[in-house]
Amino acid sequence: MIQTKAYAAQSPETDLAPWTFERRAVGAHDVQIEILFCGVCHSDLHQIRNEWFPGIFPMVPGHEIVGRITKVGDHVKKFKQGDLAGVGCMVDSCQVCYNCKDGLEQYCVEGNTQTYNNLGRDGAPTYGGYSNTIVVREEFVVSVSDKLDLAAVAPLLCAGITTYSPLKYWGVGKGHKLAVVGLGGLGHMGVKFGVAFGADVTVLSTSPAKEADAKALGAHHFVVTSDEEQLKAVQGSFDFILDTVAADHNIPLYLSLLKTSGTHILVGAPPKPLEIPAFALIPGRKSVSGSTIGGIRETQEMLDFCAEHNIVSDIELINIQDVNQAYERMVKGDVRYRFVIDIASL
Amino acid sequence: MIQTKAYAAQSPETDLAPWTFERRAVGAHDVQIEILFCGVCHSDLHQIRNEWFPGIFPMVPGHEIVGRITKVGDHVKKFKQGDLAGVGCMVDSCQVCYNCKDGLEQYCVEGNTQTYNNLGRDGAPTYGGYSNTIVVREEFVVSVSDKLDLAAVAPLLCAGITTYSPLKYWGVGKGHKLAVVGLGGLGHMGVKFGVAFGADVTVLSTSPAKEADAKALGAHHFVVTSDEEQLKAVQGSFDFILDTVAADHNIPLYLSLLKTSGTHILVGAPPKPLEIPAFALIPGRKSVSGSTIGGIRETQEMLDFCAEHNIVSDIELINIQDVNQAYERMVKGDVRYRFVIDIASL
Repeated sequence: MIQTKAYAAQSPETDLAPWTFERRAVGAHDVQIEILFCGVCHSDLHQIRNEWFPGIFPMVPGHEIVGRITKVGDHVKKFKQGDLAGVGCMVDSCQVCYNCKDGLEQYCVEGNTQTYNNLGRDGAPTYGGYSNTIVVREEFVVSVSDKLDLAAVAPLLCAGITTYSPLKYWGVGKGHKLAVVGLGGLGHMGVKFGVAFGADVTVLSTSPAKEADAKALGAHHFVVTSDEEQLKAVQGSFDFILDTVAADHNIPLYLSLLKTSGTHILVGAPPKPLEIPAFALIPGRKSVSGSTIGGIRETQEMLDFCAEHNIVSDIELINIQDVNQAYERMVKGDVRYRFVIDIASL
Repeated sequence: MIQTKAYAAQSPETDLAPWTFERRAVGAHDVQIEILFCGVCHSDLHQIRNEWFPGIFPMVPGHEIVGRITKVGDHVKKFKQGDLAGVGCMVDSCQVCYNCKDGLEQYCVEGNTQTYNNLGRDGAPTYGGYSNTIVVREEFVVSVSDKLDLAAVAPLLCAGITTYSPLKYWGVGKGHKLAVVGLGGLGHMGVKFGVAFGADVTVLSTSPAKEADAKALGAHHFVVTSDEEQLKAVQGSFDFILDTVAADHNIPLYLSLLKTSGTHILVGAPPKPLEIPAFALIPGRKSVSGSTIGGIRETQEMLDFCAEHNIVSDIELINIQDVNQAYERMVKGDVRYRFVIDIASL
C-alpha cells in the first residue's frame, strides 16, 4: 500500500483539512503518478457539501490532475517512469459495453468510476487529486505535453474536455455562430475552443463588466443579456449555445436566440428541472441537449490539440492551505478562471 | 370574389355550423381547388376553443385539404385545371428569408401564413378546408397522386408531414430503434413511416388494448408503459422517440428509455412547460427536440413517397354535419385514426 498525503473533508459540514490514507499498490496494469497540480472544479465543492447526492466521507476531491509518472506496472505499455501524465474525472469503466467500446467511457452503461467520491470496481472508495500521488489503470491515464504550462493544463482534464467534446460532437466550427453562456472555468474554455474551431463566438453575460475579459479570451462579440436592445439584436441568430451555467436560469430566453434547427447544449447542471415550453422547441426545430466530459481517446485528442494550438486554461495558482478560501471566492465567481493547487505546498 | 360554403365557429363558445363567406378571386399566381375531403386535426378543436391563443372569428378550421383544381391563374406553371391537389397547414410565407429559401417555409422567419385562423399577407383572415373551395398561391399547393384513396390522403397534409419530416431530418432508418408515443392521428403515421424507413419500431402506450392495433399498423414491438417490468426491459434502448402526445406527460421517464446520444422528438405540444432535470440529458448526451410539419418541397416528397409505397392514413369518413360529434369522440381518443370530412356532404 502507498501512504498518501491529502486534503479531505471529513463530513459535509467540515472544511478541507490535512489527512493521510493508503492507496492501492501499483498493479500490473497501473500507473502511479506524483501529482504536481490539481485544478479546483465547482463540482468539488458541490460534492463535499452533499449538494448533489450523499457522498462518501472522508472525501478527497480533485479530478483535474497532472503530474509525473513515478512507477508503472509490469504490463503497462503506454507509459514509462518520468512521463508527464494527466487524470480526469474517471479512473475506470466496464470497458465492454457499447459506449466503452466506442471510446465513450463517460457514458459507460454500468456507470464509469469517478476519480473521487465513488466506489471503485474493487469496492474501495476512490480519492481524488488533492493529494500527492495517485494510482490509476493505464487506460484512464493520458499523456501531457511538456510544451505547455503544466499548472494551466490541469483544468483541461475537466473544464477543457467538457467544452471540447460537445463542440466536436455537434461539429461546431467555421460558418457557425456560437454563443457561450457563463464565463467561468468551463465558459472560458468554451470560448477558446470555439474560436480555435473557427466559429464566430459571442459571450452572453448578465454582467457588462465581463466584456473586456471575453474579448481578451478571443470572443468576437459580447452581449449583455439584461439589456433588452442587445438581446433583441441577437434573436434567432445562433446555431449553437454552449451553456455552462450551473445555477437555475431562464432556458427559454436562450432558446429564443437560436436559429432554426439550433441546439442549446447544457454542460452545467442547474439544480432545479429546466422548464421548457414545447412551443420554445417545436416552431424552430430546436433542441436542448446535454453533454458530459469526454472519453479517454477524445481527452487525449483534446490535449494534443491544445499542445498544437497553445491552448491552456487561465488559472490562479494557490497553495493547498488556501483551498477553503478559494472555494469561498469561487462561489462568488471571483476567479479568472480556475484555481489550481500547487501540490508541492501539501 | 368567390362565394364559399363552409362550417365555421362564430365564437370560442359555439359549435361549428353552416356559414357562407367570400374568398378572393383567383390571382395570376393562384390556384382554385374544389375541396373534396378535409381531415379533422386535434388542433382544429384547440383553435376554435381558443385553447392556444385568441383566435380570429368566425373561424373555418381545416388544414388537411385535398381536391381538384377548377381554375388556375394566368402565370401558374405547376398545375392545370382538373389536377388533384392538396393544401396543408400553410398558404403563404415571406419566400425570401433563409428558411424559405431553404424550402423550410414552416420556419419562415416572418412566420408562415397558416391556412386558417391567421391573417394573410393581404391582411385578410384565412379560412380553412371545412369549405367547398379554396384559393391558394401555387407555391403552397402540392400534387396528389390518383393512385391512392383520396380521402385517406387528406391527413397526410398535416399528420403525415408532421411525422415524416422529423424522421427524415434526424435520419431515422435502418439500424435504428424508434419508439412512437401516442397512437393517434400523428402516432399511427409515425409508425407507418418508421417502418417504411426501415427502423425497428416500438409503440409505447399506457393502454394494453392498443397492442393489436399497433401491430396491425406495422409496429414490431409494443410496450405498456404502466408495466414496470416492460418499461425496465427497454431502458436505454431507443435511438429516437417520436412523441406525438399533446397532453402533459412525464418526459424524463421517456428520456430514460433513450440510448446514449438519443433524441426525444416532440411533435405534440403539451400545454404546460416540460420539466426536464439537467441530469436527464447530461449523463447520456441526450436531446429533447421539437419539429413542426414540413416545407412544401418536403411535403411533395412525402406525398410522392406515400404514392410509391402505398401509404395513407387510416380514416373514418364523416359528413360535415357530424363534425361536432366527431370532436367529442376525438377528445376521448375514440377514432382510428383520423376523421376526414366528405365535403360533398356540405
